[in-house]
Formats: sequence, structure tokens, C-alpha cells
Amino acid sequence: MYFDTAETLSREEIDNLQTVRLKSTVERAMRSPYYGEKLKGFNVDSITSVDDIRRLPLTTKQDLRDNYPYGLLTCSTDEIVRLHASSGTTGTPTVIFYTQNDLNTWANLMARSMHIAGVRAEHRFQNMAGYGLFTGGLGIHYGAERLGCLTIPSGAGNTKRQIKMIQDFDVDVLHIIPSYALYFAGALEAAGIDPATFTPSIALIGAEPHTEEVRRKIEEMLNLKAYNSYGLSEMNGPGVAFECVHQDGMHVWEDAFIVEILDPETLEPVKEGELGEVVMTTITREGMPIIRYRTKDLCRFIPGTCACGRAHRRLDRIAGRADDMMIIKGVNIYPMQIEQVLMGLPEVGENYQIVLEKEGFIDQIRVRVEIKEDFFEEDMRILKGLQKKIQTQLCNEILVTPRVDLVQSDSLPKSEGKAQRVVDQRSQED
Amino acid sequence: MYFDTAETLSREEIDNLQTVRLKSTVERAMRSPYYGEKLKGFNVDSITSVDDIRRLPLTTKQDLRDNYPYGLLTCSTDEIVRLHASSGTTGTPTVIFYTQNDLNTWANLMARSMHIAGVRAEHRFQNMAGYGLFTGGLGIHYGAERLGCLTIPSGAGNTKRQIKMIQDFDVDVLHIIPSYALYFAGALEAAGIDPATFTPSIALIGAEPHTEEVRRKIEEMLNLKAYNSYGLSEMNGPGVAFECVHQDGMHVWEDAFIVEILDPETLEPVKEGELGEVVMTTITREGMPIIRYRTKDLCRFIPGTCACGRAHRRLDRIAGRADDMMIIKGVNIYPMQIEQVLMGLPEVGENYQIVLEKEGFIDQIRVRVEIKEDFFEEDMRILKGLQKKIQTQLCNEILVTPRVDLVQSDSLPKSEGKAQRVVDQRSQED
Repeated sequence: MYFDTAETLSREEIDNLQTVRLKSTVERAMRSPYYGEKLKGFNVDSITSVDDIRRLPLTTKQDLRDNYPYGLLTCSTDEIVRLHASSGTTGTPTVIFYTQNDLNTWANLMARSMHIAGVRAEHRFQNMAGYGLFTGGLGIHYGAERLGCLTIPSGAGNTKRQIKMIQDFDVDVLHIIPSYALYFAGALEAAGIDPATFTPSIALIGAEPHTEEVRRKIEEMLNLKAYNSYGLSEMNGPGVAFECVHQDGMHVWEDAFIVEILDPETLEPVKEGELGEVVMTTITREGMPIIRYRTKDLCRFIPGTCACGRAHRRLDRIAGRADDMMIIKGVNIYPMQIEQVLMGLPEVGENYQIVLEKEGFIDQIRVRVEIKEDFFEEDMRILKGLQKKIQTQLCNEILVTPRVDLVQSDSLPKSEGKAQRVVDQRSQED
Repeated sequence: MYFDTAETLSREEIDNLQTVRLKSTVERAMRSPYYGEKLKGFNVDSITSVDDIRRLPLTTKQDLRDNYPYGLLTCSTDEIVRLHASSGTTGTPTVIFYTQNDLNTWANLMARSMHIAGVRAEHRFQNMAGYGLFTGGLGIHYGAERLGCLTIPSGAGNTKRQIKMIQDFDVDVLHIIPSYALYFAGALEAAGIDPATFTPSIALIGAEPHTEEVRRKIEEMLNLKAYNSYGLSEMNGPGVAFECVHQDGMHVWEDAFIVEILDPETLEPVKEGELGEVVMTTITREGMPIIRYRTKDLCRFIPGTCACGRAHRRLDRIAGRADDMMIIKGVNIYPMQIEQVLMGLPEVGENYQIVLEKEGFIDQIRVRVEIKEDFFEEDMRILKGLQKKIQTQLCNEILVTPRVDLVQSDSLPKSEGKAQRVVDQRSQED
């Protein structure tokens, strides 16, 4: 049976390991042209605890691009056996290089991730993610193989064939992107297939931020347990953080990564449990170690210990992108926080809008919320009560009291994507 | 450096190995429901030489389909770690199961194949084949990884990105499908990129039957050496037979496969060097051994020994599908034979047509050939001479004297695919 002893490291062991590995990582990173220059004169022996990481410089996506393709490489390309690349739709692609040891480490992290979500060697695993330069396909493929699953590399798309494969081979575990999972569930329904007769009991989801409600919907529609995960190509790909069977946050593999949560404005650590930008350092990577990488992903650590007992800390759901942050009355607010509150309320419909406005010199936030028809028929007092409830719950989450407008279903402009949810009217009044 | 001792086995060693492995394969195959039934009562110890293979039953694609999905499996699916499947566009898909040892054997065969074509660990290899259920992508990927190349899993399509990757990473070796290679060369030209500045010096081609002329065109347009290969998912996928640097036929890895060339009508072996259907037996496979598989591919062994000295026999180019065989005056003729002769003549244009007709009770073959405009302007005597030349060369190849009509460029109906090249007018005259 597969088992990785790193799963059960104690907090103290993790801290010690992180310190040792941070030192060796900095030492190794300094062999690359980029960090060799950036860290010139840095005394590696001055690192005596994980907290010393704050004396190291941050690395951004722009730094990776400016030093494309080989600037962060610590060895000859002869030692590199794989590269993965972002699609490069926004300019120069981001490229990550892997040595054979890096691929092994990655496969182990991925196998461990699947293992804590309940995947076992005897399972049949269908990998419904795109293969190729995207890390999601090959990354999980190698993990499943390491675990010893019967792996079906079905790739993305071709829903009819996906369904046939699942049925013909009694598949136990799916890897599926959340938005495709919802589409897929609809296709199952359309084909008249009862999820109760469907064999998969586990879905590994991730690669896209999604809400708890989406997870529950996937679980219900596909009749299985869905486990959230976190990864990004700069940190190998998938296998950075994964939910265990308790589904209570994603354990970050802290023997392989040091995670900081920083205020995206001040770049100082946030208080424990507060939302901020995820900043990560690879501490086992050979070919292309990356120090203090600004992921731009917003998240928080879940305080306390998981029921499973593993000491690896847990990341909450990704709450959006650092670039989406709004500052209202000095408080950092993210659209995803508002969405999470609204989507948790049964009265709230499909759509909402966030309006930023100015009252004199003071920024205000107004949230316009569509109410489902069934609830809109009620009398004014009940509507007033609902408005107050939404306001209170939002205030509890974002620490600012918003104005709340209730509007009828389908009355707001349909928005595509997160950006258009926010309407900034402040500049007009300046 | 990568080196596989099986590359240099002597003929005698190969024969002995094949006998031993054929016995163990039959023994293992009999554990599967299908062969257990089919070979009931077969005495494995009666196998004393490779020739005893002829006492074993043939296996067809239909047999694989009829016993879908698990009928040929020799072990529990718990021991299976991968499956690949055909697209299944023509009904039930063909599925091949691999144990971990099978994947290792396959990766070794593939690495050896790349090695004899001159690929080395220090090379940068771009795999421009689709990943996923298709064996071409992952099959070659694992071979390149075994060899230690820097592997770029670029996958199929996205020509602009393919070009950027090749340029940015000074790629040495491409894996590319012949038809896409021609398209790709055109795209390079259109982008104003001089092939002389292009770094790749080796292209691994295959997966589609193609002519020597197509290979030369690819080599010229991309300024590299192109090596032909042969593989099919029933025999793992790619890595069955591969050209060495002499480009003089594809060495079949006879330590892993027994190859017979049979007359598709009589199912008896053809004479050495003659064209027939390729029939293959896996002799190292655990999960799903296949005995005497009728590939439907037409090919011949190239007589004599390769200049490289390797004893593994060489397959010529695939000359079409057994189903395409025509019988004229008792002689088996394949459209690809005619195509190869025609495409070797500088006067011949893009299109031709094969017409089967009856004269009394005797079948006749007529070949209508488009002649390039430059050559059509000549006087009648020269045209007569050309007609005679084509007739003689065709007769030398197909052993029957065809009638030859020379026609002007663009005068024949444009055909898509092989099938429409042949017009059978015999039944109308019966």
C-alpha cells in the first residue's frame, strides 16, 4: 500500500525541515543567473528559522517573464527532462523546468494528495484533464501511476466517450474541472443516466476557484464526494495542497513548500486566519527553485488542527485574485467574500452587483442583490427583514456595512466573469 | 548514456529468445478467458521453435471487440495501471491494458527506437502528438523521458506556439505526424522563417502510411532527417519498428514481437521479401498478450542485413491495408504499389485513378494518370514513350500489365482518401 511518511510529520519536524530546506534552496537558487544576482552577498548561514524567509526578496510573474527562458535555471539543460509552460495568452509564457528528481518529487506529492482524499491503488482513475503543456493532466497522471491506480488518460472533452469509459470500466475516481463537472452532470441527466448507477465515488476537483455551493452541487448531481485542491505551475502544478477526507480545508505540503499569507498592499504577514495573498517558496526543487513567489491568489489559513490530525496547515478556498482587492474605509475587501455570503442565502437569485461610490470624501460600497421570485412576492416588512439580514451577514464578513438594494430576478445586467460584477462610480464624482 | 543490449542480439539469440518467450506468452495468455477457451488443450511444451507459432490461432480486431473489455486480460485489474483505447469511431473501442512492467517494457522499446535514430539524452525533444487515450503521445513521451531528453509535451495543434517553443528552446528533435509536418512546413514558410535557421535536425514521423517522396519533402522543407516508424495500439503503440540512421527500413524489435507476413487470402506465409499482411505476436507483454494479431497492414520484409549490422529484421514502408487488396489475373495487387510507382515519376501530376474492368471473362486493370502540364505540351511520340515507361514500371511492380491512359492535369475527379482512387467497373459487365 502507498504511504508517504511526510504525511505524518509533527509541527516541530515540519518547522525544522523547512529551515534546513530553505537554506539548501537558497544555496541552490544562487546558482541561477537571476537569484545569483538578486541574492549577491546573502549569507545562507544567517538563516536559522523559517521566519528568516522575510529577509529574502519576493519573486513575481514578471520576474519569471523578464528572465525567460533560462534565467532561473540552476543547472545545465542536459539535467532537465521536462518543461511545462503556461498558455502564454498574456505575453511571454511562464516556463517551469524539471529535473528527474523534480518529477519524482512531484509524482510523490501528487500521490500523497490523492491518498489523503481516499484514493487507493485498487481504484480505477479517469483523468479528465487536458494533457500536454498544461500541468494538470500529466501532473495528476504521474501521481495516479505512482499510487498504482488503473489510470485512464481520457483527457479533456468528448463527453460521450467519457461517460462510456466510466461505465465500461467501473471507474471509481474522476479528476475533473469544476465547471466541466457541472456541464458533465447536465450531460448525464440529458442522457437519462441515473447518478445512482454511476460508479465513481470520488472526484478530485480544482484548477478553478469555486464555492462550497458548487462543490455540494457537484457532489449531489454526480452522487460522489468532491475534494478541492490547489496547485499552480510555478509550484510544479497540481499537488500543492489537497483536502483530506474531512473536506475541511486543503493541507499544504509544508515539507515541499513554505507558504506565507501577506497583505497585498503592505506585503507584511496578515494576522493568523486573515485573508491575504498566497506567497510560496519551493524547498525541494532542484532545476528551478522559486523563492517567495507572489501567486496573486487570495486565501487564508484555517486556524486549528484538522480532525485527521495531520500537522500540515490548511488553506481555505481561494477567495479570488489579489488584483481584485477593493479598499473601502481602509479595509481590504474581495468580491469573492461578498459572493460567498450571498450564495449561502436561499432567498438570493443568480445575479448581484457591487457598486463602489463616494459620499463626500468617503468611499461607500453598495450591493445590489437579485431576489428569487418566490421571496419577492412577500410584503414589505419581510423584504426589509431580508435586506437587514443580508447587510448584517455581509458586514460580519467584510467588516464594513454595505448598502443593500434588493432587486427583482433578471433585472441586473448579466455579467460574464468576475470583473463586471464590480462597478466603480467613485472616479465620476471626484 | 542510454544503451539497450537487446539492440545487438545476433539472429540466433533472437530466434532462441523468441522460442522461449513464445512459450511463456502462450502460457500466460491461457490465463485469460478468451485464450483459455481458444487454446484449451494446447500443449505449451510442444513449442520447440518459432515456426510452431503457425499452429496457434489468429486473432482479429473483431475478436478484441467481441471480448471487450476484459476478455483478454490475464490478471486482475488491480495489477493494471494504464489503459489506452482507440477512438472507437467504428463501434466498440479497442482497449489495451498495461501492467507496470508492460509500461516499463514499452518505455524501453521506445527509448531504444529513438536511440537508433540518433536521439540522445542531451537532446531537446518536442512531442507534437496528441496525448491522452491515443498511444502516440504518452508512448513516445515515456520513451523520451527514459532516454533522458528534455521533453516538451506540446501536444497536437497550435502551430504558432509549436514554432515559438522550437525557437525559444533550440529544440533538436521533433515527433510529428507526416501530414501535419507538411502543413507545419507551409506555416513556417508563411511566417517567413528560414528552415536553415531552424534547430531541429531529427524528426520522428509515423502513425500514418506515407511515401518516400513525402519523407524527402519533409526533410527538405524542414531541413532535417526524418525517420519512419511503425506502431499500433494492439502492440503497445509506437516503438514496434523504427528506422535507424541508415533510413533503410524499420527494424522490428523481435525480442518483443514475432512478426509474420501472411497472404491475406490463404493466410499462409508469403515468400521472403514479398508483400502480405503483417501478423504480430507480443512476447513480453503481461497484462494483455495478443497472439498472431492480424494488423490488416500490408508490408514486406526487406531482405538482407542493414548497414548498421543489427540483426532485427526490417519492415519496408506500410503499403496500404489488406482490405484494399485487388486480385487481378490471380495476382494480389495493392493500390499503394501503384501509387509508389507513379509518385516516383517526375512527369506524373497530383492525381490518378485505378479502374478495374472486365474483358470477356478476364479482369483487367487500367490506370489513368494525370500528367503535369509541362510534359503534356510535348509531341505524341514522346507521350507514347512516357505511356510505355509507366506501363513497364507498373508491370515490374504489380506483375500484371496494366492499360495506361495519360490525361491532362486536373481532369480526374479529385479523390479524398485511398478508397475512391479505385473504380470497380467489373460487376456492371457481369
